[in-house]
Amino acid sequence: MKRERVLIIGAGPAGLTAAIYTARAQLSTTVVVGRLLGGQISTTHEVENFPAFPNGTTGPELVENMRAQAERFGAKFLYESVTEVDFTKGSPFYVKTDNDEFMADTVIVTIGANPRTLNIPGEKEHIGRGVSYCATCDGFFFRGKDISVIGGGDSALQEALFLTKFGKEVTIIHRRDQFRASVALQFRVKDHPKIKLQMDTVVDEVMGADGIVKGMKLRNVKTGETWEKPTDGFFVFIGYDPNSVLFGEQLKLRGDGYVVIDEMHQTSVEGVFAAGEIHDSLFRQAITASGDGCKAALSAINWIGERESQLQPLDAPVELQPA
Amino acid sequence: MKRERVLIIGAGPAGLTAAIYTARAQLSTTVVVGRLLGGQISTTHEVENFPAFPNGTTGPELVENMRAQAERFGAKFLYESVTEVDFTKGSPFYVKTDNDEFMADTVIVTIGANPRTLNIPGEKEHIGRGVSYCATCDGFFFRGKDISVIGGGDSALQEALFLTKFGKEVTIIHRRDQFRASVALQFRVKDHPKIKLQMDTVVDEVMGADGIVKGMKLRNVKTGETWEKPTDGFFVFIGYDPNSVLFGEQLKLRGDGYVVIDEMHQTSVEGVFAAGEIHDSLFRQAITASGDGCKAALSAINWIGERESQLQPLDAPVELQPA
Repeated sequence: MKRERVLIIGAGPAGLTAAIYTARAQLSTTVVVGRLLGGQISTTHEVENFPAFPNGTTGPELVENMRAQAERFGAKFLYESVTEVDFTKGSPFYVKTDNDEFMADTVIVTIGANPRTLNIPGEKEHIGRGVSYCATCDGFFFRGKDISVIGGGDSALQEALFLTKFGKEVTIIHRRDQFRASVALQFRVKDHPKIKLQMDTVVDEVMGADGIVKGMKLRNVKTGETWEKPTDGFFVFIGYDPNSVLFGEQLKLRGDGYVVIDEMHQTSVEGVFAAGEIHDSLFRQAITASGDGCKAALSAINWIGERESQLQPLDAPVELQPA
Repeated sequence: MKRERVLIIGAGPAGLTAAIYTARAQLSTTVVVGRLLGGQISTTHEVENFPAFPNGTTGPELVENMRAQAERFGAKFLYESVTEVDFTKGSPFYVKTDNDEFMADTVIVTIGANPRTLNIPGEKEHIGRGVSYCATCDGFFFRGKDISVIGGGDSALQEALFLTKFGKEVTIIHRRDQFRASVALQFRVKDHPKIKLQMDTVVDEVMGADGIVKGMKLRNVKTGETWEKPTDGFFVFIGYDPNSVLFGEQLKLRGDGYVVIDEMHQTSVEGVFAAGEIHDSLFRQAITASGDGCKAALSAINWIGERESQLQPLDAPVELQPA
């Protein structure tokens, strides 16, 4: 059992920025990395919109730079996953990882969300090479190209409209004969000269050539008819799953599973903070996650500062709390 | 009179990040720079905590990189100041600069705040070279050094406590015989072994050698006694002034002058958004301003998207609205 002033769960831009701030504020910090250092952005080939990189950067490079920066200030990285937390007894909080146990004075949750995937052949292999889950991030790469959008909810139709700024043509492919999206959005896509609709249709496979998306295999779910269609950009908008299952009922969640926070980025448990896509279903950018990770860190630093006289030394033995 | 889809007032990290996003979303964007490209951060010599710069950067370099990035996507920069706005008639909004006039479909206000200065000899010359207005930003540079803190409110005492993590000794200099800060904070600073108090005292001059702060001239306001004291870090925490005077009563402000926004970063006027220190009195970091600038931009992009069919072409003549 180890003691820690700040334990950060997750190592995307939110968690890594939080670690830069807490470590530089001289608070002993461990980042529990989880499955993938960097989270979603680490699978992104080209990043053009993270500010202060005028010629762009790549996801892995962005992440590695943030990690090195946090490490320079003393943050430790544990390449394990969190398997259990106990926030019910207040600070210090119990956190169990694959091979370790912690009592942490504060916890910053930055464990993110995952875009839902179609789970079809060719999809995963072409992420960042034609397959995308973010129009704001990747639309710009498809100027004058043929774009396909998969989905039928508000976000699919909104993003399809946004993608008309870039694409020569945007085809919305939806498995039902009606959209779930709001009526206003439906009118806008139906009226749009660049948008075509392909209803009652699913994609069975994303096809590529030389590692780049070139087309897809489509199937009409009513007639069973199948055909191939060329496309350059393949955008999937069928929802997100925040990774909040780990917390069970210990943190207050919204109905859709996102963690509820206040303006200081504190969760429903005092001393537990959150940032990034685990709470943010609106903006979802690396730079917004970084900014909010900084906010959560400053709040954690302040929270610890107010309790400084009551903190146990980091090398003090951990007494087991009564069950 | 020019038309513009997005007019950004202010060119710090919030405004520059907003410009990267709106320009990259193919919206015609002008940034009205004001007095100083980059705002506060441009006067900061060393920036260690902006994420993804593991070896640090400088304020001017950070700002120039963001500017070049926004320009690459088509943002225009106007090196003038805004002299007048009219938000009262709704979108498009009238904005007048020194030599130009705009009708802008959306406005993003990122005009920042200024830390109050003592306005004494030696202060301005040593900003970023011993004189600082941000403990989170600069405390780390004064590890093992002698630090002075000027002020007597909550933020002065909080920041003094934070600076004890770095400094060998922290002296709080206050012009009155009592602090305005909360009683709890007063107890904490009085009990702290590293903190010394210098009451009834003002600083008449910051003294340097080789361009670096080396000490200050102090004066007891009751006895008139004057003396010199060596110091390495000179931190001033006597408040901030948000630059909101320009907006008069057109935007809803808090009692202390900060612009009120909702969670989408929209102000009290639909179509006018805000980000950075013009609304944020809590976090005040370059990275939080960048993240929030992105949020304001995404909201503006969305706002314009919803009204796309009603927008005038950018080259349409501007009709004067009835007074």
